[in-house]
Amino acid sequence: MTGLRKERTRQSRELLLRAAAELFAEKGYHSTSLVDVADRSGVSRGSIPSHFGDKLGLLRAVVEQLHSDIAESMTTPLAPGAGGARGISHLGRTSIRRHTTKLFLALLHEASDPDSPIHTSFAQIHADMRDYLHAWLARPEISTELPPGVAPGDLACAIVGAIIGINQQWSLNPKAVNVAAAYDAFVRTLFNSLDWAGSDEAEPANA
Amino acid sequence: MTGLRKERTRQSRELLLRAAAELFAEKGYHSTSLVDVADRSGVSRGSIPSHFGDKLGLLRAVVEQLHSDIAESMTTPLAPGAGGARGISHLGRTSIRRHTTKLFLALLHEASDPDSPIHTSFAQIHADMRDYLHAWLARPEISTELPPGVAPGDLACAIVGAIIGINQQWSLNPKAVNVAAAYDAFVRTLFNSLDWAGSDEAEPANA
Repeated sequence: MTGLRKERTRQSRELLLRAAAELFAEKGYHSTSLVDVADRSGVSRGSIPSHFGDKLGLLRAVVEQLHSDIAESMTTPLAPGAGGARGISHLGRTSIRRHTTKLFLALLHEASDPDSPIHTSFAQIHADMRDYLHAWLARPEISTELPPGVAPGDLACAIVGAIIGINQQWSLNPKAVNVAAAYDAFVRTLFNSLDWAGSDEAEPANA
Repeated sequence: MTGLRKERTRQSRELLLRAAAELFAEKGYHSTSLVDVADRSGVSRGSIPSHFGDKLGLLRAVVEQLHSDIAESMTTPLAPGAGGARGISHLGRTSIRRHTTKLFLALLHEASDPDSPIHTSFAQIHADMRDYLHAWLARPEISTELPPGVAPGDLACAIVGAIIGINQQWSLNPKAVNVAAAYDAFVRTLFNSLDWAGSDEAEPANA
């Protein structure tokens, strides 16, 4: 393959992936046809098999991309102390408007069948989120403040749960949920004993 | 209509509703046909219109039932103090194995479209859950212990979120989530200042 042809193939693949991710998020997986994907992307229907095989192959590729996008938002470890708690709030608030959140919700029922080809990736997205929070909760200045008997891994699961569930409530009825206030109330109450006054500068400017 | 015929009509309606709820939870709304519902219920396909009109009417009736089942699990107010915090943990843990949780997740994408006929009911289920938690958080012995600036309504949203999201993680990968430990860690950390030692008898025996 020449360099130019390779580049065009890469572009077509990317256009198809983006169109499929949009359509799956909007209409769901089952209601989206390969013709819809071709129409939305501007790439010919006939070229899809060479890129992804069948519709399931396309779904798998969309979910791989989703997984890597979500993983990318968690590459920088959370700051120590109250700055990290603010970081959790920031992560939740910024995730809410991302395309990935809508896509995740749209494919969730698809993924919940253990035989689904995307089941493992979805379970891994949850596991990555728990690990990310767990690493912060296990920091000595946080873990020593937890009530007796509370394991960082179990609390990580509850925090990931709150991020999922606040976003789900907002997706269903944006007017009923004050997202910033909900996240702020959540981390303030969970980590009340941290030194919040000293961490103001850790709040990202674009939060 | 005679008494006997009325009773048979009521029974058929109930069998159809139950079959539809099961099938929507298993296969999703779009992949379920009215013939599937008739087959599962043992009621004739031809009688469905007289009960529910069309498939959308059946969906609406299933969601009304879902809404009232979830509302029923929240009729008793949460106990004061740490007993109420244990009650939140209990509510979350028991909801997880209920059929309603699976059905809620299965119909969520369906409901997320604001034009969907079940959108309002789904938004109301979330609102009912927030109100139920809010009433408890607004109790004087709880609200006075919240950090400055934390409004009970915002924290209620985060707690509802955690219930939704812990259940979602469990639905996707039951082996990865210790549900009892996650709920316990969650309420212990949020409401650490409550008198937990004095509330042991408030824990339901079947928790």
